[in-house]
Amino acid sequence: MEEAAATADRDLPLLALAIGDPCGISPELTARLVAHAALEHEARLLVVGDARVLAAGAAVAGVGAALARWSVQEPPPAGHALLDLGNLDPSRIELGAVSELGGRFALENFTTALRLAREGRVAAVTFTPFNKQAMRLARPGYDDEIGVISEALGARSDGREFNVLGALWNARVTSHVPLKDVSDLLGVDAIVRAGTLADRCMREAGFVEPRIGVAGFNPHAGDGGAFGREEIEVIAPAVARMREQGVRAVGPLPADTIFVRARKGEFDAVLTMYHDQGQIAMKLLGFDQGVTLLGGYPVPICTPAHGTAYDIAGKGIADVKAAFNAIVLAARMARGEGVATAPTARAA
Amino acid sequence: MEEAAATADRDLPLLALAIGDPCGISPELTARLVAHAALEHEARLLVVGDARVLAAGAAVAGVGAALARWSVQEPPPAGHALLDLGNLDPSRIELGAVSELGGRFALENFTTALRLAREGRVAAVTFTPFNKQAMRLARPGYDDEIGVISEALGARSDGREFNVLGALWNARVTSHVPLKDVSDLLGVDAIVRAGTLADRCMREAGFVEPRIGVAGFNPHAGDGGAFGREEIEVIAPAVARMREQGVRAVGPLPADTIFVRARKGEFDAVLTMYHDQGQIAMKLLGFDQGVTLLGGYPVPICTPAHGTAYDIAGKGIADVKAAFNAIVLAARMARGEGVATAPTARAA
Repeated sequence: MEEAAATADRDLPLLALAIGDPCGISPELTARLVAHAALEHEARLLVVGDARVLAAGAAVAGVGAALARWSVQEPPPAGHALLDLGNLDPSRIELGAVSELGGRFALENFTTALRLAREGRVAAVTFTPFNKQAMRLARPGYDDEIGVISEALGARSDGREFNVLGALWNARVTSHVPLKDVSDLLGVDAIVRAGTLADRCMREAGFVEPRIGVAGFNPHAGDGGAFGREEIEVIAPAVARMREQGVRAVGPLPADTIFVRARKGEFDAVLTMYHDQGQIAMKLLGFDQGVTLLGGYPVPICTPAHGTAYDIAGKGIADVKAAFNAIVLAARMARGEGVATAPTARAA
Repeated sequence: MEEAAATADRDLPLLALAIGDPCGISPELTARLVAHAALEHEARLLVVGDARVLAAGAAVAGVGAALARWSVQEPPPAGHALLDLGNLDPSRIELGAVSELGGRFALENFTTALRLAREGRVAAVTFTPFNKQAMRLARPGYDDEIGVISEALGARSDGREFNVLGALWNARVTSHVPLKDVSDLLGVDAIVRAGTLADRCMREAGFVEPRIGVAGFNPHAGDGGAFGREEIEVIAPAVARMREQGVRAVGPLPADTIFVRARKGEFDAVLTMYHDQGQIAMKLLGFDQGVTLLGGYPVPICTPAHGTAYDIAGKGIADVKAAFNAIVLAARMARGEGVATAPTARAA
């Protein structure tokens, strides 16, 4: 049994770590993160959830994850700690099965973590995976985390999902919308917003001058207008405007080779026009080991890219690497000059 | 110097091999194929083009590619041979530069090869890469090979492009059209035609019962209708009809994981709804080493997937592997029971 790492460095950013769906691998991943020695020098983790669920996860993972309880009335914890909401008895749920109880648990942990961020108590929010079906049972109309975050943070909703795999980022202009609607959604402003936000988030994550390849929309990037005109009328002008604003953007480039070029190191990020344009590539490139960053909010919000893995829940074989990467990215961004880090989380 | 392989087996299928764009690597690839010892037991190659261009390619490649001249009045050649059209003096073109002369040369070789197929003189057509810009100079309105083939073969135009990379095939329902038009083009009939044609071509290529994964169109395959309804209204009914017709089709499946599953061996082919859905994946999977098959015609038509590589033309470093694979696939399909092979090409 490993012991929970005894972090006690108040200079490290304090990150909320919301326990995700309790019916999958989220509890054991949370426990592995708390016990992960390599995170000692990255962040203080404030786990948000239920002590019993965390203990169950620790038992599955075979690690020690006993944490000091923390409550909102107290000063920031000196090391890893637990905000115990007492909101789920794990004996009431079944591993590997979608449940409304599980969705409600994950949603409450997440919104609590976001509230802590809003109140300036944590410098970033992280979470272990949610199950979308369970989230919908708990919150009808749930599509993805963006809606929940905007509501909880009271932020104007210009947040976006970024996918980060090693040194390669993927940002997208549109996401969970019907593909036939994408052309109408591709305005110059929308593309520029996505590109400049990517540039800003990447600078916050430590890139000095990120090189952003911008994908076309049509086959062969429209081939000079032969197969569609979005490149000529919208994407090229957006790239020009981004460059005027100091973003090192290049494009529009044919979507079917842009990731081959990025893999060779030609770009730090690829800006894609629609969901699958980036996801097809990122998943082939091993994005299950990657991180999803929800950027554009006052604090970074990170989660592993993979899902709840119901098929291996409770077996103790879940790989913590992507979740580890999510913590490291959130911590690095929280420490960055560009991010509005909460003072309480940085006080010595 | 290798010598041109001395094939003399009339049981081998006779394949036309049209020399492609003369300003890139096509001449040297053609010479390497003619000299390739491993093709001796696969096919007889009838090179269509100009003896001087072939000789120039052989000089670049450092191989011997001297071939017996053949004319259409003669009986089928016993081994590799050359139909010398005397249609280009290579001193008139510049390596690495697009030219109308080059486009006309490639187009004439290709249409001649197709005519030989139409007349039953060859069992398959193969060609080394074309340059699309040069083809457009030679034939205004040229988009891809499909139009040329349909005209030359007088075939009803239901031909399609397949991408073949090792044991993985990719077929698509739509190709060189604006992405915003794809939704309207996705009818049940169109999808069933593409899927059943893929099934037929793959059986001709030796698959006993090809397993075809069918991609969805929208993010997460529409996620139950939340992000688009093409899956529910069109793709799922098309998959059902294909299965009724004996095609082992599965889907619609989310596009961003279908190629990950195919890479693991779950499918022999992926049927994609639009150009980049497949091309993004295939190019990341190394499709530059793959083969483009133009299927659905009386004879198989194959070419390497890569382009004319103007940047390395004349350097003698072009890799013949994809072109080799194209010949092998065409020969295998031409030998298959299911393909209408030309009797003259199989006569002993």
